[in-house]
Amino acid sequence: MKKTNVESFEFDHRKVTAPYIREVVVYENEDYGVVSKYDIRVCQPNEDFLEPGIIHSMEHLLADKIRDIIEGVIDLSPMGCLTGFYLTVFGKRDLEEIKAKIVESFKAASEVEEVPAMNEIQCGNYRLHQPKLAKVKLEEFVSKMK
Amino acid sequence: MKKTNVESFEFDHRKVTAPYIREVVVYENEDYGVVSKYDIRVCQPNEDFLEPGIIHSMEHLLADKIRDIIEGVIDLSPMGCLTGFYLTVFGKRDLEEIKAKIVESFKAASEVEEVPAMNEIQCGNYRLHQPKLAKVKLEEFVSKMK
Ligand SMILES: [Zn+2]
Ligand SMILES: [Zn+2]
Repeated sequence: MKKTNVESFEFDHRKVTAPYIREVVVYENEDYGVVSKYDIRVCQPNEDFLEPGIIHSMEHLLADKIRDIIEGVIDLSPMGCLTGFYLTVFGKRDLEEIKAKIVESFKAASEVEEVPAMNEIQCGNYRLHQPKLAKVKLEEFVSKMK
Repeated sequence: MKKTNVESFEFDHRKVTAPYIREVVVYENEDYGVVSKYDIRVCQPNEDFLEPGIIHSMEHLLADKIRDIIEGVIDLSPMGCLTGFYLTVFGKRDLEEIKAKIVESFKAASEVEEVPAMNEIQCGNYRLHQPKLAKVKLEEFVSKMK
């Protein structure tokens, strides 16, 4: 296997059981600071994945809530493989604490009535949404992570 | 429109012409440092989008190359709306310089023979790939951005 500088390519996707939350990397940049990245895996790799409309609605539902609940959020993005999200935050965090806050964010997101920003002004693809199934997947993650 | 703390929800997706590269935000965190985020828009919002297999292969092709070409890359992730990518890097960058390096990364990615890590060990969804179309989209972006 070719050696790469991409963390996820160094990770054996056969050896995990989803759902899980894992610290991927803590970048400590001499000049610019400390940033941590987390792998929030909703689906079992290579067995299941989230339909694009579902993961897109989950992204919208989570975007606000995760920033309310976790300080210093830089980015929350779906994975290209559609099996989960990467969360990027400032600083080095206590793993159990951030895990609890991520689950709390998923719970809060699952309780939002309407998907925020699901319109052509605020979204790049407002037709690509599955709000109901997104909320089901958020709830499922919460109950399995407990 | 409800006020949010999500930058992309504050951005009018009707008023842009893709492809483009735009600075979304520069986070200056007192304790932890400086991080910038860029919106790399490949498709016109709400008119066109990248199929999941295409954007996934583009993510793999770009992952290595963008880290070779741009220092201090923290994350490159597809957007949930499938119209482009968010790039997160350490520090505040000169916009013209980083734009040029992003285009250079797309060019280098379009020239890679095989999609890296397209297997069940290194990828979360190794069947969800469209390498040929991904390379076409990377090339198209480069030629339109020139
Ligand atoms: Zn959207
Ligand atoms: Zn992959």
